[in-house]
Amino acid sequence: MQKQAAKKNERVEEVFHLFVKHMQAFLKEAKINHEEYTNFVNWADRLGRSGELPLFADVFLETHVLNAMYKDLPGTQPSLLGPYFLEGSPELEKEPGGAYVLTQRPDEQGEVLYFKGNVSSVDGKPLGNTRVEFWENDATAKYSGFDSDAPRFNLRGHFYTDENGDFVVKCFVPLPYSIPDQGPTGEFLEYMDQHPMRPAHLHLMFEAEGHETLITQVFFEGDEWLESDVAQGVRKQLITKLVDKGDHKEASLNFVMRKK
Amino acid sequence: MQKQAAKKNERVEEVFHLFVKHMQAFLKEAKINHEEYTNFVNWADRLGRSGELPLFADVFLETHVLNAMYKDLPGTQPSLLGPYFLEGSPELEKEPGGAYVLTQRPDEQGEVLYFKGNVSSVDGKPLGNTRVEFWENDATAKYSGFDSDAPRFNLRGHFYTDENGDFVVKCFVPLPYSIPDQGPTGEFLEYMDQHPMRPAHLHLMFEAEGHETLITQVFFEGDEWLESDVAQGVRKQLITKLVDKGDHKEASLNFVMRKK
Repeated sequence: MQKQAAKKNERVEEVFHLFVKHMQAFLKEAKINHEEYTNFVNWADRLGRSGELPLFADVFLETHVLNAMYKDLPGTQPSLLGPYFLEGSPELEKEPGGAYVLTQRPDEQGEVLYFKGNVSSVDGKPLGNTRVEFWENDATAKYSGFDSDAPRFNLRGHFYTDENGDFVVKCFVPLPYSIPDQGPTGEFLEYMDQHPMRPAHLHLMFEAEGHETLITQVFFEGDEWLESDVAQGVRKQLITKLVDKGDHKEASLNFVMRKK
Repeated sequence: MQKQAAKKNERVEEVFHLFVKHMQAFLKEAKINHEEYTNFVNWADRLGRSGELPLFADVFLETHVLNAMYKDLPGTQPSLLGPYFLEGSPELEKEPGGAYVLTQRPDEQGEVLYFKGNVSSVDGKPLGNTRVEFWENDATAKYSGFDSDAPRFNLRGHFYTDENGDFVVKCFVPLPYSIPDQGPTGEFLEYMDQHPMRPAHLHLMFEAEGHETLITQVFFEGDEWLESDVAQGVRKQLITKLVDKGDHKEASLNFVMRKK
């Protein structure tokens, strides 16, 4: 009993009781019967054993967590972290023109993209020295470290904004991609008559002193999957334009961080 | 797309949308932050990979499904099926006195219990020829087929009520037991400061033509875990008395089935 008392977590208790309360309201409204419950548990067991639970949660639930928390708050809307983030990315170096160059293979395929951004606080002040974590998929629409032959930290890296809160990163135009759809998550998609595609996007995470960590994504006008993103991660203010500059593309977006 | 259309399941879609609606209300009230979400997903991933998801669902959620469905309906209240049911139990034979004898080892330990019951319909008519499935744990508080050396169908079997809806089964007094508490489910119990014990109980499942299958449990007065059952499966009307008859115990309960 002492071991239990030591690990007791009142927040878990509080949250679980609220969860049960809302689950009961859900069960009453949905009129789930015992057979449906059993079918659900069998499916969830397969999902869990296959290791797809984080994929399912990140694709189908995380966005609702974020919407419930941030929808009415000022500052840039977060989007899902997703299952493809890796800790420990390298710090990027600048090329002569001042842009950070994303970690890449010598023969990396894809369209070069110069992505510019500015980071400020909700009070309007620029946030210099903000740590920016950046990751994206490659020309085969895969993320390094996950079902890809690329080195672990390929197309991943972090860097810092300058004293005006500005940054430029030389990366690649990302590709739309399909989430894994051959396991229990794919089974759910078929039931829902939902395609498995996500629109092309850049992942960014910002950390600045005195501010909430901002995890978000950047999308591009004209992408055919913007409206039907399987993960519902698109927010209007996160969509920017890809501008054609001949041998490369440019795009930009500004980010506003909330104070703690 | 044709494959998807073929498997589309409107009920899954309807239920998932209701689930999301109630989850959003839950998330708003519980004010879950992103870190708590991430901790939850990590724990749920471990739960799923360990194969404990059905255990967790049956112990912590099933009873709420049942309460939401049946609390205000006439007839015997269901209780959880639980994770220890096995399909395919043998049909039991009667001993000379007319009691069905539960499948057991020649040297089965435990206190002999004659459990008597009557099965009727909500309109008061006795339900003869009702199939009764019966299972319980043994003198080491284990269920056959799960982490036990006993033969697969030990202390499991099925039989049929007589023309008056009556039955007697010669079994054993079951024992309180601890659900598995060394994995992610046990971790959750520690957070909740909840012991892992269930009160002693018999499992019964009744099937009769024209009636809803009734899955329930029988508990005994005086059991120290009745009030704090980890699975919250106890209902007042499912509690009966153990009567001492010298070399054996007796107990009885009547069951009322709902029409389809």
